[in-house]
Amino acid sequence: MKPKIAVSIGDLNGIGIEIALKAHAQISKICKPIYCINKQMLEASCKELKVDIPKDFKTFNTKGEFNIKPGLVSKKSGKYSYDSFMDAIKLADKKEVDAICTLPINKEAWNKAKISYKGHTEVLRDYFGKNAIMMLGCKKMFVGLFTEHIPLKKVPKKITEDDLTIFLVDFQKSVKSNKIGVLGLNPHASDNGVLGDEEIQIFKAIKNANKILDKKIFIGPLVPDIAFSPMSRKNYTYFVAMYHDQGLGPLKALYFDESINVSLNLPIIRTSVDHGTAFNIAYKNEKVNLKSYINAIKEAISLSNSK
Amino acid sequence: MKPKIAVSIGDLNGIGIEIALKAHAQISKICKPIYCINKQMLEASCKELKVDIPKDFKTFNTKGEFNIKPGLVSKKSGKYSYDSFMDAIKLADKKEVDAICTLPINKEAWNKAKISYKGHTEVLRDYFGKNAIMMLGCKKMFVGLFTEHIPLKKVPKKITEDDLTIFLVDFQKSVKSNKIGVLGLNPHASDNGVLGDEEIQIFKAIKNANKILDKKIFIGPLVPDIAFSPMSRKNYTYFVAMYHDQGLGPLKALYFDESINVSLNLPIIRTSVDHGTAFNIAYKNEKVNLKSYINAIKEAISLSNSK
Repeated sequence: MKPKIAVSIGDLNGIGIEIALKAHAQISKICKPIYCINKQMLEASCKELKVDIPKDFKTFNTKGEFNIKPGLVSKKSGKYSYDSFMDAIKLADKKEVDAICTLPINKEAWNKAKISYKGHTEVLRDYFGKNAIMMLGCKKMFVGLFTEHIPLKKVPKKITEDDLTIFLVDFQKSVKSNKIGVLGLNPHASDNGVLGDEEIQIFKAIKNANKILDKKIFIGPLVPDIAFSPMSRKNYTYFVAMYHDQGLGPLKALYFDESINVSLNLPIIRTSVDHGTAFNIAYKNEKVNLKSYINAIKEAISLSNSK
Repeated sequence: MKPKIAVSIGDLNGIGIEIALKAHAQISKICKPIYCINKQMLEASCKELKVDIPKDFKTFNTKGEFNIKPGLVSKKSGKYSYDSFMDAIKLADKKEVDAICTLPINKEAWNKAKISYKGHTEVLRDYFGKNAIMMLGCKKMFVGLFTEHIPLKKVPKKITEDDLTIFLVDFQKSVKSNKIGVLGLNPHASDNGVLGDEEIQIFKAIKNANKILDKKIFIGPLVPDIAFSPMSRKNYTYFVAMYHDQGLGPLKALYFDESINVSLNLPIIRTSVDHGTAFNIAYKNEKVNLKSYINAIKEAISLSNSK
């Protein structure tokens, strides 16, 4: 049976709805999507895009109504994107769907709507009271982030044996890979302590995690600027990066268009596109890239099946 | 007239000499190489590699003699690689060559030979009393490093308006590009101060440098994990990274084999391969990759011509 996936519709002033409509025929072959958008808003979007509503476009009635203004940061659109997301979460929490897939929201619009979260992941952490792990990537390469949206200067102190051990064990339980590369923090992974000392914590955490899992799963600390070289990538599909740009710089250099965002370590499965609302091209019938969305749907299906 | 290039031979227990011999025919077409190695050591290397000495293989008599031991970290080989490098520097300093190109040395071997420098760049800084700028890359993408071999935790404090302004101006004078992307330090380039504040210094330095150069050369601070995405790379060939792995992670993910290392802001031109001694494959007649070396020679020629 095809898994049910709730799709939160994102900021309706952006490209999310266009992506959902254009990709619908393709993803319907592999899953049963339920779009969190009401009939009025769907009709308004389709009118603006000058397309018909696909016949089998199943929706969940996310309440609210406002005028779509392509490309505009708006309080109402921000609020609606949040409500659509909350509906999707609740559907998954009540097990009415197998997974959720989120289209892009706009942080400024959330701000205007007095929604204080920085993004989807923070909402999920708060809702489930669990430390969600953020992983980005595509089939060729996934990167889990040990730290995310914090200033770079705060990163080194966060690298502690205990916290990283817990992170690594949780990460492995989610992705179920048998071989995961863990990056060092410093240039050349510190060159044996000459360029920093946080690698000692990383080394110990790797040792602990492998002991807990009773298998040599984690390898590292890898030299950060070599870890994503073609040769090294032959050895790993899953990596753990110590900070945001260490993992996402190389990922986006290599696989910008096809990458997705996955929330791990939660009671529900959630995947997401790895791009923003693209206000500059919204409702202009420009070429929108469906790759990230389709990959996000595929990963949601794959995670549902392996659960 | 073809430019003269002094080639320092690197650690003779490693792959440098094999690369020099194998690439000689090709590079001789575009420059006049002068290899800093004496006849005895050249003969010994060729014997070990079971190849003949090319007839037009012009050498500079770097003194010293020892037994080549493929793949071994050795004091004598370390010392010889340093002497070969010093000879190349002196040839360039006396204007007997137009540029130098360096083959890889081994830091541990330098250590054993009581040579306290961490690498070529440090020697050059000391010799010329100038603040050499380290740039890595290939024709498609070059990255200048504002900070290099320091622990990550020391990076944020180094980001000051004054130092970065000087760096940017020196960098532009060396590479002569009209458009250079400058990265931020923090995730999302701090999202307007939410994730750190060093972007203020970077922003001011960019403004200062553009004013000094009387042209809008520098653009930024760019969001670090987007700066090297395919779309962004269409806009820039030259980037300035705030720290080692910020620039080199994406560079090596994309262009590992073909990248080179260039020392800017010095009285002489120096380029280098961007790989190590590869002791594991030295003298085994395995496939050695000549790309980085040939690109390094080409860049040395190009910089000589534009001087």
